[in-house]
Amino acid sequence: MAESTVLQFSPFQSHVEEGFWKRLSSLKLNTLGLDETPVKITGFYGPCSHAQVSSHLYLLDESLPANLAEESSSSEMVLGNRNRCPIPGTLYNTNTLESFRGLDKQSLIRKEAKKIWEEICSGRVEAACAVLSRFLVISYADLKKWTFHYWFAFPALVLNPSALVSKLQPASEWFNLEEGKSLSEACNEWRKSSLTAAVPFFLVIITADSHVTLRPLKDWETCQRDGHKLLFGFYDPCHLPSNPGWPLRNFLAFICSRCKIEKIQFLCYRERHGLADLTHSLVGEALVSISQEWKNPQFIPEAVGWERNGSKLAPRRIDLATSMDPIRLAMSAADLNLKLMRWRALPSLNLDKLSATKCLLLGAGTLGCQVARMLMAWGIKKITLVDNGRVSMSNPLRQSLYTLEDCLNGGDWKADAAVRSLKSIFPGVEAEGFTFAIPMPGHPVQAKETAGVLEDCRRLQNLISSHDVIFLLTDTRESRWLPTLLCTNANKLAITAALGFDSYVVMRHGAGVSADDKDASFSVCSSGIEGHESRRLGCYFCNDVVAPNDSTSNRTLDQQCTVTRPGLAPIASALAVELMIGILHHPEGMNAPGEMASSISESSSQPLGILPHQIRGSLSQFSQMVLVGSSFNRCTACSNLVVSEYRRRELEFVIQALNHPNYLEDLTGLTELMDKARSFNLDWEEDDETDIETVL
Amino acid sequence: MAESTVLQFSPFQSHVEEGFWKRLSSLKLNTLGLDETPVKITGFYGPCSHAQVSSHLYLLDESLPANLAEESSSSEMVLGNRNRCPIPGTLYNTNTLESFRGLDKQSLIRKEAKKIWEEICSGRVEAACAVLSRFLVISYADLKKWTFHYWFAFPALVLNPSALVSKLQPASEWFNLEEGKSLSEACNEWRKSSLTAAVPFFLVIITADSHVTLRPLKDWETCQRDGHKLLFGFYDPCHLPSNPGWPLRNFLAFICSRCKIEKIQFLCYRERHGLADLTHSLVGEALVSISQEWKNPQFIPEAVGWERNGSKLAPRRIDLATSMDPIRLAMSAADLNLKLMRWRALPSLNLDKLSATKCLLLGAGTLGCQVARMLMAWGIKKITLVDNGRVSMSNPLRQSLYTLEDCLNGGDWKADAAVRSLKSIFPGVEAEGFTFAIPMPGHPVQAKETAGVLEDCRRLQNLISSHDVIFLLTDTRESRWLPTLLCTNANKLAITAALGFDSYVVMRHGAGVSADDKDASFSVCSSGIEGHESRRLGCYFCNDVVAPNDSTSNRTLDQQCTVTRPGLAPIASALAVELMIGILHHPEGMNAPGEMASSISESSSQPLGILPHQIRGSLSQFSQMVLVGSSFNRCTACSNLVVSEYRRRELEFVIQALNHPNYLEDLTGLTELMDKARSFNLDWEEDDETDIETVL
Repeated sequence: MAESTVLQFSPFQSHVEEGFWKRLSSLKLNTLGLDETPVKITGFYGPCSHAQVSSHLYLLDESLPANLAEESSSSEMVLGNRNRCPIPGTLYNTNTLESFRGLDKQSLIRKEAKKIWEEICSGRVEAACAVLSRFLVISYADLKKWTFHYWFAFPALVLNPSALVSKLQPASEWFNLEEGKSLSEACNEWRKSSLTAAVPFFLVIITADSHVTLRPLKDWETCQRDGHKLLFGFYDPCHLPSNPGWPLRNFLAFICSRCKIEKIQFLCYRERHGLADLTHSLVGEALVSISQEWKNPQFIPEAVGWERNGSKLAPRRIDLATSMDPIRLAMSAADLNLKLMRWRALPSLNLDKLSATKCLLLGAGTLGCQVARMLMAWGIKKITLVDNGRVSMSNPLRQSLYTLEDCLNGGDWKADAAVRSLKSIFPGVEAEGFTFAIPMPGHPVQAKETAGVLEDCRRLQNLISSHDVIFLLTDTRESRWLPTLLCTNANKLAITAALGFDSYVVMRHGAGVSADDKDASFSVCSSGIEGHESRRLGCYFCNDVVAPNDSTSNRTLDQQCTVTRPGLAPIASALAVELMIGILHHPEGMNAPGEMASSISESSSQPLGILPHQIRGSLSQFSQMVLVGSSFNRCTACSNLVVSEYRRRELEFVIQALNHPNYLEDLTGLTELMDKARSFNLDWEEDDETDIETVL
Repeated sequence: MAESTVLQFSPFQSHVEEGFWKRLSSLKLNTLGLDETPVKITGFYGPCSHAQVSSHLYLLDESLPANLAEESSSSEMVLGNRNRCPIPGTLYNTNTLESFRGLDKQSLIRKEAKKIWEEICSGRVEAACAVLSRFLVISYADLKKWTFHYWFAFPALVLNPSALVSKLQPASEWFNLEEGKSLSEACNEWRKSSLTAAVPFFLVIITADSHVTLRPLKDWETCQRDGHKLLFGFYDPCHLPSNPGWPLRNFLAFICSRCKIEKIQFLCYRERHGLADLTHSLVGEALVSISQEWKNPQFIPEAVGWERNGSKLAPRRIDLATSMDPIRLAMSAADLNLKLMRWRALPSLNLDKLSATKCLLLGAGTLGCQVARMLMAWGIKKITLVDNGRVSMSNPLRQSLYTLEDCLNGGDWKADAAVRSLKSIFPGVEAEGFTFAIPMPGHPVQAKETAGVLEDCRRLQNLISSHDVIFLLTDTRESRWLPTLLCTNANKLAITAALGFDSYVVMRHGAGVSADDKDASFSVCSSGIEGHESRRLGCYFCNDVVAPNDSTSNRTLDQQCTVTRPGLAPIASALAVELMIGILHHPEGMNAPGEMASSISESSSQPLGILPHQIRGSLSQFSQMVLVGSSFNRCTACSNLVVSEYRRRELEFVIQALNHPNYLEDLTGLTELMDKARSFNLDWEEDDETDIETVL
């Protein structure tokens, strides 16, 4: 035997494609959350196919299960092909950089080595030889910055003493011409068949007549018995003429411990242009001695194999933020804070539902701007704004979607400027703006304006029916009437926010009138409370005994402008949106009953907390309270009487109400009610004076 | 006498310069408010000086008093000059367009006519002849849109029957050559003298020897007696050769009623190049007859004189928004909503104080962005932001000063991007941004970093001492420690806002330690309550029995990021700023005691409402409460012990605290306190077990 030296193996090299990190990010954010359970992954490699470059072990997007359910339902290996032999791996993705750094790497690699050893001992390697190249990855994914810290280990069982190599030469030199030709044919056949193409370890049998066949590992005993020349072949990722690649290490361990061979001839199979390349492939003879320890069934060999980063034994880091398309990055970043909520604080958060909810904002002023921002922050994608004004110089300081730029040259339409601003914050928003006025009772329609007003009514009808939630954010009482009626009629969720000088009210309107309520009769009574319907929550108008009317004419400048404490609008807007989020998460949705302060046990049943009907607050007292008020059967906006009449006469009814708000009072019986109340007061006063002695 | 026709007068024309409207806007906004009392104004005109163009009655900025105190203290006429003869006027500026339109114009012009008539009858005209041209303006100023609706009236007493004219010809034709020369000299003299230049009515005396002199009106009786040829001269704004100008109307009324002359020779004085122009000036003879009515002392003549707008008798409208510099317009619009508050809702609002208050915001994230917006909305001009981060892709949806643009190429520094955004909203803001980290206990300082950390400490010291209010808006507990200490030491108002997942706390720190508190001794006791100082309100750390320490390391992504319900930050930010506004308006400022809910009578004493110490709220309950907590004499941030040590050792002390947070616990006695508490618990537990039978 020639002089022998210690056999040196060329380490495996890893390569991770961006797709892997993207799928990992999505898996972590959407499914894993805080769960640090190791994840089964699949690496891919093939034989070296280039004289100067070794093959890498690749991680691709399909290296990860698309979701964990998928992974658990199938324990099968991902299907590979001739250039992508699937190799099982384990991913340890940590929640923090500190725990990434703190992982016990020695213990992790030993754990994988143990698996490999057990698979060798159990014979499983013969059935699924790729497990010999089992690997592991530890990682920490900073989903906020799109940077990934990671470290591969390719565990190699340590032979003790080390394997020696007595010969190592190009296969073309080792085989005679005929053998070589036959080997090439056999290898190309092996690589062509879908059954064997992705099987990286195999037996090479050379008969005395120089005929070469390849056989799967499970045939090792038969082959050994046959007495033919036997080589152990493997797909070698390494390109070096001087060294075999890393997979040979565990292959040698398998051969010596399982086949009890101590003088092992091996073939490092390499290719060129998709065909066997025997000048490039190597054949060598390894001398191993089976240590005594290995015979102890409890024994597990030592393992090495943490990948180097350049010359250092250190983890790697990749920053994808710089290479990603900013728009795409923004889209994925948008959901980050929300998805993180589901990890711990709010697992039941239904982001799909939010993202599918279409919101219509009536008014793009102080409230509308802030509500739109809040909606985006909650992951709402579809936001439509209606306003009929232009951005004026005094707006940007309180209306958070506008800047000075929007005020120049007479000012842009608010609806347009708001949409532009929303898109500059988050390009993924589907925002639309409409510029038209909401028709209002008490603002009579001139004959020549009728067509335009009818058109506005129809636009509003259409917008309300094509959205799920309607926010009433205008600055007059009467502009909320038609939207309230239309939302009740279409049974859409309506949320009102309204401001005083230092107080606010935020409320959800009750679910719309049901079909069987249509002919509800009512008795005249002077108490509003008796007239309230117990089943439905009230609307913005349910506490009023007069119809909405023109409140804008003849108002002084401080009454026309938003003279409110600046803090009010952000508070009321935030509460309006938070209320909506709660309703969308309630099993009964907009039909959820109005709740007051809850006991602890109740609040725990709804993870977002209680669902009030109204929230009223005062900045001068820094106080806030929740209220429940039921609907009023003579309400000028949401009562059955009004809705039925609207259903019967549609826009003709609306125009009549716009021109004559008193008509609404007559229709609902409010006129009669107030007359009775007045006469009652009168009677009582008379009694009070004439019968004064009886009182005494 | 030749044939006579009715004398026709060319109407006065008004011209209002922008300066007038600007001063009116400012007066209305800052001083008048809702007050609709008529305002005395001064118009200006001079004789016509152009063959084709009449002179106008001008309103300039000095036509209005700079403030009303000035107006009331001096009833004197504004000083004029030869081309700006001051004419008294009255401005009726209404609060609404509707009341502008609804003004009783007939009654208003009669009211001015009555004044003129009384001044004629009383002889006041002789002393101050300009009152003959008294005028009035009605207006409505839309300060939001910078549009002004207005209408001039130049009241002319109606002669009944009308004056007839028998002759009207160029003065150069009426006078002989010598008279003309002498008249020109006399007129130029009159116009040159500061005593008479701005006196628009005068007497022209022609002696038999063709010598002409001008005399003031008060000399009319003497002149009549002298028997010289007498003409009544006036500065004629009109350029027409066919008609005298409007001022002649009331002049004729004066002459006939006061001087009892029925055949009046008048001189319409006009100029060219600043000298009398007799070809252009007119002389005419008017025939008037004094009606019987005029002799009745109760009688007031009818008046006409509302200015036409083109051919229509209608008001005018001017829109200044288009012509004004947008930056200037923005500056003035910024204050609009705030100044309007003072009209009715909050007369005691001290905008000067707010505008002079310098605010320092530590943190430019979700809270910092919203606080900065709120401060601008309240009229705060000086805003400084400190942050050490860059704008990341997930920020713009919640951090309301950023857009996608700010995230590109690795992201701008938040402090810079925030300043840019604030200026784009309101160019008048004095915003500055600083990028550095706030040193934090538990984040030990490496030797090589010491110089940098000391520099950061000094920057923070300097910023705190150069500002009035400091907002603590960072996202870790430990980053609030040094600012709390420095604010306490410098006795600056510190306001903290902090968020949980669905709860928030907003609090003001108590006023700093006073000199006599420095050596306050304290007794060891296990109850936090006994250790609380009754005089001072607590700080953010006063409820804690451990020093702040590193809370950022080893945190998972959902703990690192702002995992809060999106509605929280706008609410907490709004409350923090509203609390500051309340403190700045309280007579005791930052020393104001912490208030709980107030009775109605108490709240009326502070127009902005109560001044709590802490506001805590929960989105899951939609609840909010106010609390008062006093300072803790072992607080690691604000107690005398800590502040004294800081004063003694300054930055050396700070570095020690950064490196060893336990040092703060030792210094304040917290270590000892906790040891005692532990041993007490231990004793109790032992008792519990050994003496169990005595309990039973």
